[in-house]
Amino acid sequence: MTTMLEVTDVTAGGCCTPLQREPLSAAEADQLATTMKALADPTRLRLLSIVAASEGSEACVCDLIEPVGLSQPTVSHHLKVLTAAGFLTRSKRGTWAYFTLVPGALDRVSQLLTAS
Amino acid sequence: MTTMLEVTDVTAGGCCTPLQREPLSAAEADQLATTMKALADPTRLRLLSIVAASEGSEACVCDLIEPVGLSQPTVSHHLKVLTAAGFLTRSKRGTWAYFTLVPGALDRVSQLLTAS
Repeated sequence: MTTMLEVTDVTAGGCCTPLQREPLSAAEADQLATTMKALADPTRLRLLSIVAASEGSEACVCDLIEPVGLSQPTVSHHLKVLTAAGFLTRSKRGTWAYFTLVPGALDRVSQLLTAS
Repeated sequence: MTTMLEVTDVTAGGCCTPLQREPLSAAEADQLATTMKALADPTRLRLLSIVAASEGSEACVCDLIEPVGLSQPTVSHHLKVLTAAGFLTRSKRGTWAYFTLVPGALDRVSQLLTAS
């Protein structure tokens, strides 16, 4: 696999086109790829979009099961992945868990894809 | 799998919290997940970040091989995946292929993650 040293080589002039800013390090790329994996699933994208479209960007897990047509354990698993990846936060009120969108969770990758 | 009908059920009031806007359809989510899969890889994220950090957001394939420490065929494969997913465009000038960042390729998912 790649090392931090290789990134240093690029910016030190191993590369023929000078870079305008520091590219992602191997470690940053690994971390960001894990975050992106959480988004690379149709059910998780639909769950996120329903939460984002809900009033106050918050939805009860009870409202998320029927729309995606999957079992509660499966939906709970996907919500857990999205929460671990930093796209949602979870709070419990009474019987139900509520999930709230974390705005700006995609900022790191948006910055990455901004032209220099 | 899920159907378009289920999405209709949600917005028609099968869900107890009214939605502020239309969530992703199953078909849109499938397509977007494919796009996100292209980003869910550390090497591809590093390649994209090097192109984005290059002058004019354009880089020669010859400048992308050394930084990621992989063979030319492997790097070319990753660049092909990024091009197919709409993150890069490819042009050939002389011996080398050049890759240019497509700004706004992430807009669809950014919109999705915007609070309602």
